[in-house]
Formats: sequence, structure tokens, C-alpha cells
Amino acid sequence: MMQVWDHLWRNVHLATMDAESGDVHDAAIAVADGKIVWLGKEADLASGWQAKQVTDGQGQWITPGLTDCHTHLVYGGNRSHEFEARLNGVSYETIAKQGGGIRFTVNATRASDEDALLQEAIPRLRSLLNEGVTTIEIKSGYGLNTETERKILRVARRLGTMFPVRVVTTFLGAHALPPEFHGRADDYIRHVCDEMLPALAAEGLVDAVDAFCENIGFTSAQTEQVFIAAQRLGLPVKLHAEQLSDQNGAALTARYQGLSADHLEYLSQEGIAAMAAAGTVAVLLPGAFYYLRETKLPPVQALRDAGVPIALATDCNPGTSPMTSLLLTMNMGCTLFRMTPHECLKAVTVNAARALGMQQRTGMLRTGMDADMVRWDITRPADLSYHIGGNFMTERIFQGVPSQRF
Amino acid sequence: MMQVWDHLWRNVHLATMDAESGDVHDAAIAVADGKIVWLGKEADLASGWQAKQVTDGQGQWITPGLTDCHTHLVYGGNRSHEFEARLNGVSYETIAKQGGGIRFTVNATRASDEDALLQEAIPRLRSLLNEGVTTIEIKSGYGLNTETERKILRVARRLGTMFPVRVVTTFLGAHALPPEFHGRADDYIRHVCDEMLPALAAEGLVDAVDAFCENIGFTSAQTEQVFIAAQRLGLPVKLHAEQLSDQNGAALTARYQGLSADHLEYLSQEGIAAMAAAGTVAVLLPGAFYYLRETKLPPVQALRDAGVPIALATDCNPGTSPMTSLLLTMNMGCTLFRMTPHECLKAVTVNAARALGMQQRTGMLRTGMDADMVRWDITRPADLSYHIGGNFMTERIFQGVPSQRF
Ligand SMILES: [Zn+2]
Ligand SMILES: [Zn+2]
Repeated sequence: MMQVWDHLWRNVHLATMDAESGDVHDAAIAVADGKIVWLGKEADLASGWQAKQVTDGQGQWITPGLTDCHTHLVYGGNRSHEFEARLNGVSYETIAKQGGGIRFTVNATRASDEDALLQEAIPRLRSLLNEGVTTIEIKSGYGLNTETERKILRVARRLGTMFPVRVVTTFLGAHALPPEFHGRADDYIRHVCDEMLPALAAEGLVDAVDAFCENIGFTSAQTEQVFIAAQRLGLPVKLHAEQLSDQNGAALTARYQGLSADHLEYLSQEGIAAMAAAGTVAVLLPGAFYYLRETKLPPVQALRDAGVPIALATDCNPGTSPMTSLLLTMNMGCTLFRMTPHECLKAVTVNAARALGMQQRTGMLRTGMDADMVRWDITRPADLSYHIGGNFMTERIFQGVPSQRF
Repeated sequence: MMQVWDHLWRNVHLATMDAESGDVHDAAIAVADGKIVWLGKEADLASGWQAKQVTDGQGQWITPGLTDCHTHLVYGGNRSHEFEARLNGVSYETIAKQGGGIRFTVNATRASDEDALLQEAIPRLRSLLNEGVTTIEIKSGYGLNTETERKILRVARRLGTMFPVRVVTTFLGAHALPPEFHGRADDYIRHVCDEMLPALAAEGLVDAVDAFCENIGFTSAQTEQVFIAAQRLGLPVKLHAEQLSDQNGAALTARYQGLSADHLEYLSQEGIAAMAAAGTVAVLLPGAFYYLRETKLPPVQALRDAGVPIALATDCNPGTSPMTSLLLTMNMGCTLFRMTPHECLKAVTVNAARALGMQQRTGMLRTGMDADMVRWDITRPADLSYHIGGNFMTERIFQGVPSQRF
């Protein structure tokens, strides 16, 4: 006797993002116990199937649920006053002297209690959920001490219990040098590696470890110390790499079998080769590129040629990408980085899931995967990248459970 | 005895966009018969007021309802297939040879019946309404014959009756040369002036008249014929001017007391002076600038120096700006054009209303004006321009009547 499905969507087209299946027109997809259990041409549905619920998809498209694989979603305050000051002619230097920049966010985050941080993060998360995000990475990095980094990661975990979304946390203690360690970067890195990371990992708050390797961040030697500490704890690594200069951060990340190297405007051919060999995903962040009015493009064609999987993410953060639209990120992938709409959809589904080590669970429509899916009122998948600021989501399904808006 | 108000919002801050009032903190605003009848510090509310309804605004901000003063919202089909083809390396020439570009949209619009056009336009309008738009301009221009131009303008009028929004129509028959008039641009302009425009104006479908004055559009002599025909009918004019080259279109528009000249990347100092003298609004369209990856910026500082009012609009259209977010347009005004957040808010309220000749009715919080307002869950008005892809609208009020989402 056949299994009784929980839910069947019929009269839909599927953008499976599974290279073997491709797009399936005039399709159906069935879910049981939160997993995809059948998909194919509706005409191929065997007779005798039973489903507790059947939805007529009205000829719309279903894609995998979207994954935003690089965000700094949880922080205190915003920086619109600095944005405004700069546009009124105040220099970066003056703003920095007045305690602006990341220090402003660190102070505001330290000063916020956990509930306040949670309340501030919720509208940003809702924006993403309402565009079909079913998996989101959230980094710490605005605490720069154990207590505040813990607070951020706890908020991230709480968001994952409050909303139907998979939250993957990343510890980014090595984001910037906190004022208490002024002039003592190596001491801070030791503190990160020996105290902060082990403590937070022991509390189950850390899924992966990241750092900011840059001439205005940490050196690649300091970054490697962080990677060694992560490896000791069995945690995967990733890196903010090659955003403003080439620090060989991507190659270092590849050497530690990193999940992803992110930004990559200044990535070298050697870095690309190392990433390709290690299977490290290139996470491009066009929102920050746009917001900072950068002109140096990441090497998209060379990444393609080398077969490095490319993901896109919002980089949602208060200083360089106050952005909560993954659909707009897809359009920027096309418009600014000249990726194709198909590449952009892969970049926020299958490749983004891979950047989080989640490719066995989400990011693809395939039997056995979690039933994370979005139904869209669009004519073709490319519509998602083509439109700017529209939202054509009809239904969002997380682990088999549909919802509409948050 | 005092008037009984219909609705009082208290515990709000007001960004009035009225130079005399500025921002009013800890304020209240009262509405009766669809008009603003009182506003000021809540502490200055005279005792003895009565209101049928009172809303506690929870310390949020109220701005004027937003005006999107330049859109081509009504069209058949979209052009995501061309967007995709170009990113896959197909040249503009090949696409044009295959009947692509504006001809594709004209054919699809001619082939659609009125109800189909309406249904296609609704999601785009909803996106804008859900970001606080209370007034929208909608142009024809994808018909290029009387029958189809009528169909577009009728859909625009119907949208204005179906949704709580003020729709202002613009006849843009001189958008492109239709295939039937190939090689006979002067004949087509005569047809526009003598047949199409008078017929559609007589049906009450035309609030203003526009043209595309460009080396790939119509000459300034042809444009002037259109302006003369509009003047004869007592209709105000505006122009797609100086987008790709300097055709002296802005100065021509100013000579006819035009409401606005739009795009303006190639605007000259003489054009600016003429606009300043005539009070013609400069409507900048950063969405098209972004989508086309232009590098030539409109002369924002010179417009400021000359005191020309600057508006921003989405330019929503399928070919060069498939954009339905006026908030994102504000961010692009800051990020790409270096306008300040305050300028961007003026650009989508008071100045955009002026670009439509509606400055006595909407775009400002002032007693006597229509009660078109938006309440936002933000800390300061600059937040609206600072965020990318967020939506912090709590409540949208059109002519005194609140609603939430569409
Ligand atoms: Zn980042
Ligand atoms: Zn236009």
C-alpha cells in the first residue's frame, strides 16, 4: 500500500536546481514528514496516491526555499545618522573620530539587552522570510567580548525557534579589534581562540567560525590561529576575504577546507584554483559592492571557468549593506556582476546551501531533501532576477509546512 | 463649538515636508472629511477636541503619502527573456532583429485585452502601495495607436477606482515610432497631434502630455509639435529629456511651462537655468541609471545651486527599469546620485507632487491638504533612504482613510 502524503502541490512548474532534473513543467510535488517524497510530471503521478491536503498551484512556479548564507542580522542601533552625515559632506575620518563606524554598532550592541536585540532583528528577518528565505546564516561580531557575542548568538538561536526558518550561526569574534585590546591584536586573537570560541562552542551556540582578514582587519597569520582553534573544536571555517585587497585569505580558507570565502573582489587566480580544489564556495555580496560604490568587480568569469560554485547573499549589516532583500541581491548579481538569472537562482539556493554545509538538506527540490520551497506568481524563473523591488511570493513552505506572510 | 474630527493620530513624530513646519516631534495630526485639519505638538492640542477615532502612533513617524511621478506601469508581457538573453551573451542588435526591445512590449500590449492588462498591472501597483505610495503617474506609450493608447489609459483610470490611490495619467503617444509609420516620423507626429491626442483628451483620459526627445526617439522640432497640440487642449506637458544626449529638451519643456523634465543625465547649464526660471521640476530616475549601468550622472549639484526642485521616481517599465520600489529609488538617490536622505524624501513627496501639478493637494502635511500620509516604524526619517529592501510601513492613509497592506 502506498504512503499517504501530507501535502501534494499539483499544477505547478518546478525549478528543481537539481542538475539531473532541471526544470519540470506541468509538475507535481509531494511532501511527507517534512521531506520531499515525490516530484515529477503531473501526468506521471501513479494512480492511487493519497494526500491529506492538495493545493492547486495555478500554473505557478515552485523553487527551493532561498538561503541567505551571509548576514550580520543581529545588532543594536542602525547607522542612518552616519549615512546622512556622509551625504551632507562629513568625512569618514570625522565620523570615526566621533566614535562612529563599527565602534558605534559595537557600543549599541553591548548596551542592548537580549530582548531588545531580538526585537530589532525581527523586522529584518521578516523582510527576508517574506521573500522566500527558509535558511539564514547569522554571524556574531558586534560584541567582541564573550558576553555580547553570546547575546548575539542566543538571539540568532531564538529567532530560529520563533519563526519557521533554519538558522545557522557563525562566530565572528575576529571581526574587529575591540577598544579594550587597542594595539594588542595578537592578544585579542589569543583571547578569541582560547576563551571566547571554546566557551560559546561549549554552549552549542556556534555552527561555524569566520574572521575578517584584511589590512583594516586581521592578518592572515592571525586568521590562521582562529582557523586552528575552530579545527580543534571540529567546527567548519569561512572567511571575509579579498574585499579591499588580496591577503591570500581565500587560499588559506581552502587549505582548511573552508565552507566559503566571501566578498572576493581582489581574489587572485591562485586563490580561485585553491578554492576549486577544496570545493570552497565563493560567496559574492553585491549589496556591499553597491552601497560602497566599489568599481573593482569580483572575478566571476574566472570563478565560472574554474568551476567554483558561486553563492550570493545580502551581507545584511548596518555599516556597508543595510539590505534585507535577497531578490534584490539576485538582480544585483545580474546587473552589477553580469551573472545570468539561472546562476543567480543557483546562488541563493543550491550553492548558498552548500556554503553552509546544508546541501544535503535544503536548496534543491529532490526526494529525501527537506521540503523547503517557495511558490511564486511568475512566468519563468528568470523573472525573480529581472524584477527590482517586486515580490511575487504566493506561498512559502518550510519543512513541509506552508505559510504566507510574516 | 469645535468640529468633531474623523480621526486623530497622537504620539507620533511628523516629517511635514513643509518648509515652515519642518519636523514636529511628539506631535498629533487630525483629519476630517479627508483633509488635514490640525497638526502640531501634542502638548498644544487645545482641550475640548473630539475625534470619532484616535490612534496611538506609538512614537512612530508620519510622512506625507509618497508620490511616484514617473511610471509606465501598464504594459503587456515582460522582458525577462531579453534580460536573460543579454546576460547569456546575445547582443542588443540580435535581440532587436528578432523583434525585441520596445517593439516586443508594443506587440504584447496591443495583443492584450483591457482586463488582462489590468491584471498584469495590479501586482506592480500593490508593490508600490505597500511602500506608502498614495499618488502615482501612469503613462501610455506602448500602444502607439489610438485604440491601444486608449486601452492603457483606461486601465490606469480603473486602477484609480479599484485602489485607494490618486492616479494621474500621461499621454505618451510620442514614445517611439510604430512599425506602421516606419520612415515617416513626421507623419506619425501629425497623427499623434491631430488624431490620437484630441480623441483621448476628449474622453477625459489625459491629464498631461509627454514625449521621448532623443536621438533614438523624436527630434526637438517634433517634440514641440506635440507640446503645441497639448497647449491647444489646455494640457500640461513634460518630457523624457537629455537621457542619452543633450537635445535641449529641458529648455524646450521650460518654454512651454512644463511640469517636469525627466532623466536629465546630459542636461546642460542652459537647460538648468531655463528649468529654474520656469519652475519645471527635475525628475531623476536612478532605477534606469542603475539597470542600464550608466556612468554619466545627472547634474545634481548644479540643480541644487540653481534651486530647481528635484523629484525621484521609479520609471517602472519593462525595458530599462522593471522596478516597483520607491523606497529603493530613494536609497539609489543617495547611493548613486549622492542626494541627502532629506532631499530624497522631498523628492518623493512635495517635489514629486509638484511634478504632477498636485502640490496643493498632496505631498505635504499641512492643514487643508488631502490627508495622504504614511506611518512608519522607524527612528528617524533618514531611515527610509538608508535601508535597502526593507519596508517599515505600519499604516497608509489615503484621503483620511487608513489601510495596511494590499
Ligand atoms: Zn559580512
Ligand atoms: Zn520613462
